[in-house]
Formats: sequence, C-alpha cells, structure tokens
Amino acid sequence: MQWYFVAALLTILTSSQGILTKLSQNKDSTYDYDTATVPFLGEIFKLLVSCFFLWREKETSPTPPKLTKEWRSMRLFLVPSVIYLFHNNITFLTLKYLSPSTYQIMGNLKIITTGILFRIFLERKLTKLQWMAILLLAIGTTTSQVKGCGDSMCESLLSGHITGYILAVVSAFLSAFAGIYTEYLLKKNNDSLYWQNIQLYTCGVFFNTGWLIVGDFQSGFEKGFWWQRIFNGYTLTAWLVVANLASSGLLVSWLMKYADNIVKVYATSMAMLLTAVLSQFLFDVKATIQLVLGIIICMISLHLYFTPVHMLVDLPAIETPVRREEDP
Amino acid sequence: MQWYFVAALLTILTSSQGILTKLSQNKDSTYDYDTATVPFLGEIFKLLVSCFFLWREKETSPTPPKLTKEWRSMRLFLVPSVIYLFHNNITFLTLKYLSPSTYQIMGNLKIITTGILFRIFLERKLTKLQWMAILLLAIGTTTSQVKGCGDSMCESLLSGHITGYILAVVSAFLSAFAGIYTEYLLKKNNDSLYWQNIQLYTCGVFFNTGWLIVGDFQSGFEKGFWWQRIFNGYTLTAWLVVANLASSGLLVSWLMKYADNIVKVYATSMAMLLTAVLSQFLFDVKATIQLVLGIIICMISLHLYFTPVHMLVDLPAIETPVRREEDP
Repeated sequence: MQWYFVAALLTILTSSQGILTKLSQNKDSTYDYDTATVPFLGEIFKLLVSCFFLWREKETSPTPPKLTKEWRSMRLFLVPSVIYLFHNNITFLTLKYLSPSTYQIMGNLKIITTGILFRIFLERKLTKLQWMAILLLAIGTTTSQVKGCGDSMCESLLSGHITGYILAVVSAFLSAFAGIYTEYLLKKNNDSLYWQNIQLYTCGVFFNTGWLIVGDFQSGFEKGFWWQRIFNGYTLTAWLVVANLASSGLLVSWLMKYADNIVKVYATSMAMLLTAVLSQFLFDVKATIQLVLGIIICMISLHLYFTPVHMLVDLPAIETPVRREEDP
Repeated sequence: MQWYFVAALLTILTSSQGILTKLSQNKDSTYDYDTATVPFLGEIFKLLVSCFFLWREKETSPTPPKLTKEWRSMRLFLVPSVIYLFHNNITFLTLKYLSPSTYQIMGNLKIITTGILFRIFLERKLTKLQWMAILLLAIGTTTSQVKGCGDSMCESLLSGHITGYILAVVSAFLSAFAGIYTEYLLKKNNDSLYWQNIQLYTCGVFFNTGWLIVGDFQSGFEKGFWWQRIFNGYTLTAWLVVANLASSGLLVSWLMKYADNIVKVYATSMAMLLTAVLSQFLFDVKATIQLVLGIIICMISLHLYFTPVHMLVDLPAIETPVRREEDP
C-alpha cells in the first residue's frame, strides 16, 4: 500500500470525525451519550482489530511475525500514554488562560514543534525548502482559522495571559513529542505492526479507564460507576464516531511506521481544511476569504514539501538527499 | 550598484509615499494642495533629473552615451502612457461596482498578471518554485489586507457585481502590461537609461497635462485654469510627497532596465507591508494577526524566489538555469 493513499484516507476519516461528531449532537448542541467514553471505546476497538490482524498474520504469513516480548521493550509503549496524560491536563489548564479561539490558533504550533522534534529526536534532516513548507502549513491553517477583527479574535489573541501562551507552547511540544516517540517505537525494530499496536492500545485502554474513574470521582459518583452507563445514549451516529476515531487511529499508526509524523501532520491539516469546506455545504457556515487563502497556502506547502526538487526547478532528475526513505 | 540595494531603497521610498501623503493631510483628511497635480509635478521632476544626469553622462563618460533618435523607436515610449490612461479610467469604472476594500484585495492580482505577462512577452522562463513564490506573494499581501468578517469585508468580497471583478482583472492585466512594456522598451537597446527616461517622462508630462485639462473641463473651470493654481497650498510635506514619488519612479525605471518587473513587484509588495507596520507606530492603527501572517508568507515567498536552489535543498552548488541575467 502506498503511503499517500493511506494519508488521503486518513484525511477523509479525520475530516469525517468533526462532521460525524456534529451530526451526533442534539439540536441544542448537547450529547445523549457520554463523550468521555468515546476515546475509551475507540481504544478497545483498535485493540480488537489489531488482535484480529495479528492472528490473521500468524495464520497466513509463511514466516511467523516478529514479536518482541521483553518487558524492557514493552514498557516503552507506556510513554505516549503518559505524555498524553500530561498533555490533556495542560490543555485543561491552558483553557483557563486563553479563549478557545486563541487556543485553536496556538494549536497550529504543533505543526512546527513536530518538525523540530522530528529533526532532533529522529535525526531526520529536512531541507530549507521543507522547513519553509512546514512553516507555510502552520501559517495556512492559522490563516483559515482567523476570524478577523469585529469578532473577539482581534483583541483576545493579543490580550491572553502570558501563562496561557507558555502552556500552549508546552502543550504543542508535548503533543508533538508523543507523536515522535510513537514513530520511534514503531520503527525501532521490525516487529509486526499489529503486535506493536496491541501494546500501544493496551496502554491506551488502561489510561482511558483511569480517566473515566477520575471522572467518576470528580462528579462524586452522581451518575454511578462509568461501566454502568458506558453504552447509554449510543445511537448509530455515535457508534460511527467511535468506529471512525478508531480507524483513523489505526491509519495514523500505519503511517508512523511506514511513512512519518510529517505525513501525518499534513493529513490532519488537510482534514481540518476539508472539514471547513464541507461545513459550508452541510451546516450552512459562511465561506470566508481567509479559508480560501488558507487552502491555497496549504496546497503550496504540500507541493513544496513532497514534490521532488528537480520538478520544482526544471533541473535534470538527480538523487535528492532528503526524501521519504521508509516508503514501503 | 547592486539591484537588491536599489530594490531595498525603492521599498523604503514607496512605503514613505503612503506615510508622507497621510502626513500632508489636514486633520479632517482633506488636502490644502490639489492632489491631481502631484503626478504632473512628479513627471516634471523626473524629467529634469534625467536631463541633468544625461548632461553629466555626456560630460564625464569617455565614450558618448548611445541615443537612438529615430521616430520609429521614440514613438514606442507613448505606449506605457496610453496604457495608464486606459488603466486609470477602468479603475474609476471599477470603483462603481466594487467597494474600495474589495478593489484593494483584487489589486493583488497584479502580482500574478505581472508574472504571466513577464513569461509571455519577455519570454523569461520561471521555475515552478518561482511561480509558487509569486502566487504566495499575492496570497501574503491579500492576507495582510483581509479585515475579516464583522467589517464589511466578509459580505462585500462575495457580493460585488461580476462586472466589477472582470474590470478588476482587466485592470490588473493592463497595469502589469504597462510595466512589462516599459521593461521591454528599456532593455531593447543599450541606449543611455537617462535618454530613455527623458522620452518616457516627456510622454508622462504630456499625458498628465491632458489629465489636468480634462479635470478643468469636468469642474467647469470653477477653480480657473490648472496652471493658475498648480502650486497652491503646497507645504514642505506636500513637496516631499512629490520628490518621493519622483525618486521612486526613477528607481523603478532603473530596476526595469537592470533587474526586472518581478523585482519591482517584490519591492512594492514589501513596501505595502512596511507601511502597514509603520502605521502601527505612527497612526495608532491596531496590529492584526492577518498582518503578521501576511508578512511571514511574503518573507517565505521572497526567500523562495531569490535564494539559489542549491541553498534551499542542500545540493552541491550547480548552474541553475533561471536566475537574474541582467545583474549589472
């Protein structure tokens, strides 16, 4: 399977996520199901799918799949979950200092922090052209989100508390680091991807369970234990939200092993723009010129990052030093 | 003299133009002097300066400067003036159909039309990378100008009359064509630049005089003949506006001969951003995030267009086919 096919599929699924979530809402923007259970059920779903694929790989593959079972290696799969635990708490804290729209704008920093950590921890060299493409991607997604003055945007972006900005930067680094670490884990040996997924998602289930328990404590067990109400209010659309989240998670994992974090960042950024475009038609949201500009900027960025250099400058085809190496 | 030094100087002068004009206003945004006389006086100024420089060149140069004096060649210098005549009238017409802010946004099209006509008429090949840089420059300047919803922008951009948009496109092509034709004229033989300037500005004086006479007729000679009131209300700042306009005109002419239209487009775009930044300090205009984003986009564009390719992608230095050839 080609990585760009998977990336395109991830773009579509990620884009559907926002739309399905919106469709699963009631008219007053409330949910009949408990949205906190969605990531938990998603992890369960991914775990089951990975178990099935590993079993099938064992059955059909002529050589048995490689499975490293040392604790020294397996414990590393806890790291991304731990990082996300910190990340989620910091997000919660950040939103005390910044408005949601400023937080969303600051979220685009993740594109740049991913590039930086990609360079530092995975030691993957990027050309100046690719750096500029990454910067443009962040600028493009930001442009598409700017509401302009007249809305609260104009003041709030510059008047948020400095603590909020620092936390947003920390958050961008943590989130990027979780992605980079996962890529490192999946690529560090040639274990079966499904086995690596099982370890990853087992940790995920574990931490999400913890999260639900903490929620129960925080609400003083008002609504009883989480497992008593886990499926409450789940409609078909709500189940689609879970299935969609889980499927995109599996694609992300595939991309991390066979492509890289930058490809994933491009897919999710494009998904954000696709969601914005689809929202025009589905939810009667008004198109802004910022969205059009943002889309053009991101398309140029995509082109700059992935087009071989000799095609950009009409040089004779030559070995360019920096292109995907893991292309399966 | 290096072209980038001249381009930087042009950026500063063009940027000063808007600020000086604003400073020459009264508090109620009216002018004591007749703004219609500014371009006329500017042409006179440029003509005198060019005459002086040609005289000095004749005196000091060991070989006499080349001056083509055939009518067949000289009449071509009328073309840019004729194009500007059409252009100015179309601008006037366009503003009947589009709001000033939409007109300003559409004005960025000139960057792209200049690239297109540069390719077609001057047969200068641009790489894909340079095309993307030009597109980004237009996107960047547009981004910096978008006011966002809440202002009139959001509706007006999409609700202008189609005739207005067509006229704006025609206007962008005409304005670009005038620039491209001037470059063709100045480069087609190795005549002294000062002699070429004299022909250009003589036509300019001629057409601007016509413009003033038409103005007199339109106002029914209410304020008398134009020459009776030409210096009325001119303060030092107003004279600086004239001198600044004329000096930037001379630099544009130099750039057209020794660099090209794209360099000029970059200089004037950068000037637009510089004016916006300086306005923050001078006129207490509020900084918008769009301006910051626009500046970053234009800086990336500048870098993409002018940096030699081998520096962008870490290739060993090679002959790149498309770079400035006229670097004097």
